[in-house]
Amino acid sequence: MTAKVQGFQSAGVHCGLKAEGAKDLALIVSDRPCAVAGVFTTNQVKAAPVIYDQSILAAGNPVRAVVTNTGKANACTGEQGLVDTRSTAEHAAQVIGCSLDEVLVLSTGVIGVNLPMDIILPGIERAAAALSPDGWEDASSAIMTTDTRPKLVSVTTESGYTITGIAKGAGMIAPNMATMLSVVVTDAVVSREECDRVLRQAVGESFNRIVVDGDMSTNDTLLLLANGASGVEIAPGDEAFAAAVREVCTELAQAIVRDGEGATKFVTLEVTGAPGEDAAVAVARTVALSPLCKTAFYGGDPNWGRIVCAAGYAGVPLDCGKLSLWLLDAAGEPVIQLVDSGCPADYDEPSAIALMQQPEWGLRLDLGLGAAQTVVWTCDLSHEYVTINGHYRT
Amino acid sequence: MTAKVQGFQSAGVHCGLKAEGAKDLALIVSDRPCAVAGVFTTNQVKAAPVIYDQSILAAGNPVRAVVTNTGKANACTGEQGLVDTRSTAEHAAQVIGCSLDEVLVLSTGVIGVNLPMDIILPGIERAAAALSPDGWEDASSAIMTTDTRPKLVSVTTESGYTITGIAKGAGMIAPNMATMLSVVVTDAVVSREECDRVLRQAVGESFNRIVVDGDMSTNDTLLLLANGASGVEIAPGDEAFAAAVREVCTELAQAIVRDGEGATKFVTLEVTGAPGEDAAVAVARTVALSPLCKTAFYGGDPNWGRIVCAAGYAGVPLDCGKLSLWLLDAAGEPVIQLVDSGCPADYDEPSAIALMQQPEWGLRLDLGLGAAQTVVWTCDLSHEYVTINGHYRT
Repeated sequence: MTAKVQGFQSAGVHCGLKAEGAKDLALIVSDRPCAVAGVFTTNQVKAAPVIYDQSILAAGNPVRAVVTNTGKANACTGEQGLVDTRSTAEHAAQVIGCSLDEVLVLSTGVIGVNLPMDIILPGIERAAAALSPDGWEDASSAIMTTDTRPKLVSVTTESGYTITGIAKGAGMIAPNMATMLSVVVTDAVVSREECDRVLRQAVGESFNRIVVDGDMSTNDTLLLLANGASGVEIAPGDEAFAAAVREVCTELAQAIVRDGEGATKFVTLEVTGAPGEDAAVAVARTVALSPLCKTAFYGGDPNWGRIVCAAGYAGVPLDCGKLSLWLLDAAGEPVIQLVDSGCPADYDEPSAIALMQQPEWGLRLDLGLGAAQTVVWTCDLSHEYVTINGHYRT
Repeated sequence: MTAKVQGFQSAGVHCGLKAEGAKDLALIVSDRPCAVAGVFTTNQVKAAPVIYDQSILAAGNPVRAVVTNTGKANACTGEQGLVDTRSTAEHAAQVIGCSLDEVLVLSTGVIGVNLPMDIILPGIERAAAALSPDGWEDASSAIMTTDTRPKLVSVTTESGYTITGIAKGAGMIAPNMATMLSVVVTDAVVSREECDRVLRQAVGESFNRIVVDGDMSTNDTLLLLANGASGVEIAPGDEAFAAAVREVCTELAQAIVRDGEGATKFVTLEVTGAPGEDAAVAVARTVALSPLCKTAFYGGDPNWGRIVCAAGYAGVPLDCGKLSLWLLDAAGEPVIQLVDSGCPADYDEPSAIALMQQPEWGLRLDLGLGAAQTVVWTCDLSHEYVTINGHYRT
């Protein structure tokens, strides 16, 4: 049961982009203008809705609605792609009763296919008719692609405002590259500047810290909308608000990894003892991206040589003799030391295998070089990932 | 039938590192001192034999022999690792009758396990007893790990000298990161400086242009030994010699990709129209590393959006509207255009699928930005790759 976020309604409906009646179009509408902030993909190849939304946000005006379609990414679709995004926004504005520049559009799905506007425009009308304060589960289902379950997180604070977020992920996911599709809304009273500051801080510690497969989408977008309906005012620099947004983003980001394409393991990678945070992130990310590490995670094989090897090519100067590595249990406690100062530790192999067979565990790699550290969340590379992506379009 | 390379003998024997009598120890010996050059992994975590060989080469003396063991990489083995490498070299020097600093040692296999010297030392004696001018097939078999077939290339030039090379690959393979294990020998008379120049040039156009999985080993080593036994002198800057070494290295590198872990497709990635060669290589390499591209290669799915998307996050400024993409047949001819100036080309999907189901084909991505180009060879990511690496040690 999701707490109501005041002044927002949402809906998820089937318009025909997905087969068999699955929900494929989501609409989020605020009854009043929202302060808004966005973080977008840094891919050089940007989908039409990313280009469109960036121009809307650049104008600096409040927004009222977000339309999201799945099935087609509307990327590499030339001029027609931008025309279709604008038509989507126009139709939504008309149906909702707001101005064109108050509507944002998100798309996700196959690249290089034009949007079937003849089904999307009626879909918007159906979604508008279905709008409800309780529509979040439908909306979160409607933005799914290869996700196996919807991602919906809601937090109500003691101050009396609520933050609700939905996200979709599953594949084409890597850190330091914006994020996937996610919309976070709140009924707190927040300035545009504060939305922007808080969102950028949150993304750095949530969506930018996850790795599924290292691919970065053409469509990645994260939006934060604040409509002020709760009447609770957020002062600039309010740490409780920042922490609550971060909590919602972190839960959504972790949910994306847990539901990564074919994922059977949720792995927390801690890198400690780094000379700087950038170095820690580079090492953690290289391990998270390594196909050999990811397949060892899949097999539940404590083949720590692959972890140390991947750390070695992260582009960070290392001293092999100072590296230590532990297996962490699901609570994050270091329970088995695998490597001690660059050499194999005296550990019980069956216990290490048994832990790594669990669905959730972690690794702590201490570089022995400094005081900086980071955490990255990732998953394994399984047969199912290959099955899903070997024949994605068929 | 491999042409004899004069003055060299080689052998591959079973000493007990691999199961079921498979060859696991190779020995290459020249009857006279060889000029030598080497290229090594740039991984910060270097195996003991890499550190040892680099110190031997730094001394600048000729060498006589190369010992290679599989099964254990002798990486992350602390001081004992270096002691064991030195003991291996000492024993080989004694058996062959040369000095300690004339022997190089290569290791490959599981990281973090000490070498079982009690079986390696007798193995060296057995290999020495088996030395033969015709031992190359045995030697190339004995350096295999997850390789399914030996890699042996030999070229005899019109000038009368021969170049013979062996290599092992299969996994942990990425470009711009030295190479895997490979030893190339020639009976031409070549200076040490010329060996070094020619080898570095060759590696840039062969081993550094292949991608299997993006992992870079702790043990990667490529050696070139020239013993001069043919009496044919190579003048500094001799282009025919450089071309012949390049040919051997390219054939070995391509053989490694063809035999990549679980590979079912050999894919040639051409990037043209780049603003510079570095940009071309960055784009080609990003596509070659992308799990989504590699699984589409596996599925034989002309999902060109993934290629364009991967190009977009290569860190190279691109203009999506200038991108064009072709499928190449096995001969390298552009037979089907998939993308024209950033938009889908009007192509026949069943023909594209049929071509991509073949074991060998290519892609040409034109960035439309300049005149620079490159070629990278890669393979697909299959269920078998996951099977091999999910349980490598068991």
